[in-house]
Amino acid sequence: MRLSTVKIAGRTTWGVVEGETFRDAGAILADRYADLKAAITAGLAGVSEAAAKAPSFELSQLEWLPVIPNPDKILCVGLNYEMHRKETGRAEVDNPTIFGRFANSQTGHLKPILRPKVSTELDYEGELAVIIGKPGRYITREDALGHIAGFACYNDGSVRDYQRHTHQFTPGKNFPETGAFGPWMMTPDELGPLDDLRIQTRLNGQVVQDATFSQMIFDIARQIEYCSSFTRLEAGDVIASGTPGGVGAKRNPPLWMKPGDVVEVEIERLGILRNPIVQEA
Amino acid sequence: MRLSTVKIAGRTTWGVVEGETFRDAGAILADRYADLKAAITAGLAGVSEAAAKAPSFELSQLEWLPVIPNPDKILCVGLNYEMHRKETGRAEVDNPTIFGRFANSQTGHLKPILRPKVSTELDYEGELAVIIGKPGRYITREDALGHIAGFACYNDGSVRDYQRHTHQFTPGKNFPETGAFGPWMMTPDELGPLDDLRIQTRLNGQVVQDATFSQMIFDIARQIEYCSSFTRLEAGDVIASGTPGGVGAKRNPPLWMKPGDVVEVEIERLGILRNPIVQEA
Repeated sequence: MRLSTVKIAGRTTWGVVEGETFRDAGAILADRYADLKAAITAGLAGVSEAAAKAPSFELSQLEWLPVIPNPDKILCVGLNYEMHRKETGRAEVDNPTIFGRFANSQTGHLKPILRPKVSTELDYEGELAVIIGKPGRYITREDALGHIAGFACYNDGSVRDYQRHTHQFTPGKNFPETGAFGPWMMTPDELGPLDDLRIQTRLNGQVVQDATFSQMIFDIARQIEYCSSFTRLEAGDVIASGTPGGVGAKRNPPLWMKPGDVVEVEIERLGILRNPIVQEA
Repeated sequence: MRLSTVKIAGRTTWGVVEGETFRDAGAILADRYADLKAAITAGLAGVSEAAAKAPSFELSQLEWLPVIPNPDKILCVGLNYEMHRKETGRAEVDNPTIFGRFANSQTGHLKPILRPKVSTELDYEGELAVIIGKPGRYITREDALGHIAGFACYNDGSVRDYQRHTHQFTPGKNFPETGAFGPWMMTPDELGPLDDLRIQTRLNGQVVQDATFSQMIFDIARQIEYCSSFTRLEAGDVIASGTPGGVGAKRNPPLWMKPGDVVEVEIERLGILRNPIVQEA
């Protein structure tokens, strides 16, 4: 199943994407679930049945919002592909590198990624996002995959000078409308095995990142195990699982995203997240 | 005015602390404000009037919760006192060091700070918390103090081995029930000028941190200016403004907090935040 949060004629709802059709399950289940996060919290109970009888819309009628606009937590994994670790010159470590994004830094599919007034060093980071379904603390590697509600494309848009102001990444990773998340999440049964899936980032059609998930240093199970060792994971929480090599900051000369550009993150079998770059007013 | 979020006989509410009395403004204003954050969002309109006629309770009847249990964002400033910067061996920087805490890592006055199962390296960090009142982006230094709703004591409890797993502090700063926040926030008019106020952390009565706010490297106005340059600050957001020198991790031998200990953060004119250390079950 593919699930999205969207606006239709100004009304925020969520539902199921089937081919070129969106089924407004949120309208049918409004008394039961306030939003997609609430439906995930309930294990998506009743969602298929509601979608089958829900009003349908063409995808072109939708304004795409972040898949989960209101996660309790967004945990980002840094330096999780060997090529990216090497290009940044960082040492090998025994645990995943984790920093946070606040929910208000997100944006949806086809919406602008904003280049802020205060920087021109806006960079892409194509990533696989993991959406937590079943809450937990001290989740073991063995149990980890059972806590996943779905997967989505994420662009962990980064403002590199702010990221480098100090050794903490938080400022460069939290500018408004820089974290693109969509168009949908896909449930694990539909996506199938992750390892051989390919992730590609394209800037104006040119491939700038290209990897498979088997190249992750810390796999998804280990990420869930580690994150849940220091925080309780809640339904709807997002883990952005790290970006492959090829970021713009490490090219010579650097390749920054600028107004008028279009950036895409494609994950095989999952979909394409596409965003224009727009200058902040 | 001093404002707190509390439980009384299992019911969560918020109100005004006057001497040894708590006035349950939340009960009077329940139709208007869902919580203290909502009251702050409305500029505390009507709160004094409601408190005057609200049911009153003795402070001993209260279970203290984090002053704002549900902030949109908690921004923590690292390495913001020269003595602490030097004891950590970190270089001087031109901008504040910022990392994030998630709301579910907080705890209230007199509640346990939890030593987790996975570490014994639990450390104190006494801090001044700034609670944002008026939202804003790109707030100037000159306007910054006008965006503050109040101040509170904060203990940015830190799990040092997790903090040092990689160069990102997030894991060590987000363990459940490690960020103590209370007992109340005090409005700026009541607290008066910050600069000469003293902050002291005591572990089992022994003074372990002792400084004045004039010793901050980046003052509160600069912190608000900087944070609002990369994120929109919302009413109820918290900035934990950094800890003075004297942390347990940099002592020889290290001084860790252990079950049975009591830690206090006292800020002159503002109050005392006290927490017992309890081992996670």
